Amino acid sequence: MAAEVAEQPSVWRRILEDGVPAACEASRRVAQAAPRFVQLAARGTSDHAATYAKYLAEIEHGLPCGLVSPSTMTVYRARPRLADVLHIAVSQSGGSPDLVHSVQVAREQGALTLAVTNDPDSPLATEAELHLDVLAGPERSVAATKTYTAQLLTLHLLFACLDRDGRPPHPQHLAVLRQLPAMAEELLGREGEVAAAAQRYRFAQRLVTTGRGYGYPTAAEAALKLMETCYLSAQAFSGADLLHGPLAMVDPQVPVIAVVPEGPAGDSMGPVLERLRERGADIYGVGSADAVAGTTLGIELPGGVPGPLSPMLEILPLQQLALHTALARGEDPDSPRGLRKVTETL
Amino acid sequence: MAAEVAEQPSVWRRILEDGVPAACEASRRVAQAAPRFVQLAARGTSDHAATYAKYLAEIEHGLPCGLVSPSTMTVYRARPRLADVLHIAVSQSGGSPDLVHSVQVAREQGALTLAVTNDPDSPLATEAELHLDVLAGPERSVAATKTYTAQLLTLHLLFACLDRDGRPPHPQHLAVLRQLPAMAEELLGREGEVAAAAQRYRFAQRLVTTGRGYGYPTAAEAALKLMETCYLSAQAFSGADLLHGPLAMVDPQVPVIAVVPEGPAGDSMGPVLERLRERGADIYGVGSADAVAGTTLGIELPGGVPGPLSPMLEILPLQQLALHTALARGEDPDSPRGLRKVTETL
Repeated sequence: MAAEVAEQPSVWRRILEDGVPAACEASRRVAQAAPRFVQLAARGTSDHAATYAKYLAEIEHGLPCGLVSPSTMTVYRARPRLADVLHIAVSQSGGSPDLVHSVQVAREQGALTLAVTNDPDSPLATEAELHLDVLAGPERSVAATKTYTAQLLTLHLLFACLDRDGRPPHPQHLAVLRQLPAMAEELLGREGEVAAAAQRYRFAQRLVTTGRGYGYPTAAEAALKLMETCYLSAQAFSGADLLHGPLAMVDPQVPVIAVVPEGPAGDSMGPVLERLRERGADIYGVGSADAVAGTTLGIELPGGVPGPLSPMLEILPLQQLALHTALARGEDPDSPRGLRKVTETL
Repeated sequence: MAAEVAEQPSVWRRILEDGVPAACEASRRVAQAAPRFVQLAARGTSDHAATYAKYLAEIEHGLPCGLVSPSTMTVYRARPRLADVLHIAVSQSGGSPDLVHSVQVAREQGALTLAVTNDPDSPLATEAELHLDVLAGPERSVAATKTYTAQLLTLHLLFACLDRDGRPPHPQHLAVLRQLPAMAEELLGREGEVAAAAQRYRFAQRLVTTGRGYGYPTAAEAALKLMETCYLSAQAFSGADLLHGPLAMVDPQVPVIAVVPEGPAGDSMGPVLERLRERGADIYGVGSADAVAGTTLGIELPGGVPGPLSPMLEILPLQQLALHTALARGEDPDSPRGLRKVTETL
C-alpha cells in the first residue's frame, strides 16, 4: 500500500502522457451520441470516483446524472429505457459480474456504454462499447489507492475532452494538469506530519468524515480506507446531510475529518465546521490554510488548484493517514481481514 | 416519538382514504409530460424515501433515475439541461432552502417539478408545479417516523397511478394496500420483543445495517434513527457494497442489523449473511421466517407482502428498536442532542 500510494505522481504523468488520445477518442464518440443523461455504475472505491464524475457531469457539463444500483438490473431484472443515456461503469478489476451485467443490460436498452478500468482485457472492458484504461499498472494492495486517483484523472480528461467536442483539453488546462504530479510529490513528502497525526487515532473506534461538492468523494473514500485498513467505523457524510440528523452522534469522542479546500467546496463547509465546533468535535482539516486554521489540527493543501482537480490531491494525505493509523494500531494494511482484492457481487 | 410510531397505521388509512385522488391527478400530469428521466432531491429521512422511489421508478417503471446533490445547484450554481426530466423533492417540512432552490432551478431548466411534503403551505409545496401532501399530521418528534412511512406510501401511490395512466391503482392492488394498516398494527403490537432485544445494544458504540434493493432504504433509515436517538455510529450499506471493503471492520463486537424480507431483496442477501457469519457477526434479522432463522436473533415480518410494499413494514420494528435502545441507554429520544426539527441547509 505504501509503495502504491507513493507511485501516484508517476501514474498521473503516464496518464497525461499516454492517456489523452484515448480520452479524446472516447469523448468524440460520446459527443456524437449526444447523451442527455449520464448514469454511473460502480462499487467501493470506484463508486467514489463515479461520484466525482457525477459532479463533473452535472456542474461542468449541465448533464443530469445518476448513480445506478446494479441490483435493479441483476436482482430485479429491471429493463429501463436508456436511449440518449451514457452508461459509465467504473471498476479497478473490471471483473465484478453485477457491473458487467449492468453494461450488457444498458447496451441492450439503448445506452452508449463506457467502461473505465485498470485492465483492458477484463470482462467489463470487453463488454462495453468504449473503454478507458486508467494505466495505473498492477495494483496489489487490497485497499485501492493509485487506481482511485487514476480513475479521477481519467474521468476528468474524458469530460475535459467532451467539453471541447473530442479535441484534447485546452493547452492552458493541460498545463495546470501537468503541475499536479509535482504538487502531489510535495504533498506526499510531508508524510512525517501525517504519521504523527495518525497517533492521535490509535485508540479511536468511530470516526466521521465530511465534505461537500467536489470534497464529498474525498470524504467517502477516506472513510472507506479507514474502514478497510484500521477497522474503524468511519462514516462519510456530505456536510449538509451531516446536519440533517447524524450530527447528534458527534461528540468530543468521535474524531472528525473535514475536507475543506479553497473555493466553493471548502467555503460551503463553513456552517458545518461551526456546528461541529459547537458540539466540541475534534477536527482534522485537509484543505486551505484559512480553513485548517479553524480546525483542531490538519494539513494544508497546495494553493491555487481549481476545485475539480483538488480531489486528486486531497485524498493523498488521507491515504497516508489510513496507512499510518493502521500501522500504529498494529494492523497490516496490506492484507485487511475478511477481504479479497477482486470482490465479485451479483 | 412513541406516539408517532404508534400512529402510523391510522396515517396510512388516511392516505388510502383521502390521498388517492391527489396521487392520481399528479400522475396524470406526469404521464402527460412523459418524462424520460427522474431526479430526486431530499435530505435525511426523506432521502431514504427518495431512495425507495428511485427503486420504484427504475424497477417498476423502467425510468432511469438519479438522486440529486442540491449543492451542485446551490454551491456551484449548475444549470443542468432538464427537458423531459421529472424532478421530485421530498421533505417533511418543505422548508429547507437548498431543496426549494433545487426546485426553482429544475423548473427554470425545463423539468416538471413535484414536491412531496407534510405541509401544503410550505415554500417547497408552493414552489413546485405539483404537490403531494403526505397527510401525516403534525410531527413533533425530531426523529421522523410517521412522515417517513407516509412518504413511502404516497410515493408508492404516485407510481402506482402512473402505471395506470393516472387512474387509481388496480382494485386488487388497492385491496393489498388496505391490508397494510392491520399488518402494521399486529407488528407494532410485538413491541415487547423489540424492547427486550434493545437491551442487547445497551453498551454498543458501533453498529452496521444492511439490505439490498427495496431493503436498502430500510437499512439506511434504521441507521439514521439509531444515530439520532442513541448516538451510535450506525452505518448502512447495501449488501453488495458491504462486501466491497467495509466488511473488514465487522467483527463480533459490531452488531449487524440485516433487512431480509421475502423475495428478491431478502434472497439476494444470502451471500452477504454467509460472509457476515464467517466473520462471527452478531446479526439481528428483520424479515422472513427462513432468513431470520439464520440470524442471531430477529423479528419475523408478516408473510405474503409484495416486495415494493415491504419497506413500510420493515422499518416499524426498527423505529421501535431505536426508541427502546435510546431509553435503555438513558437518552431522551424526543429531544436528540444537537438537532432541531427543521434543518435548513444552503
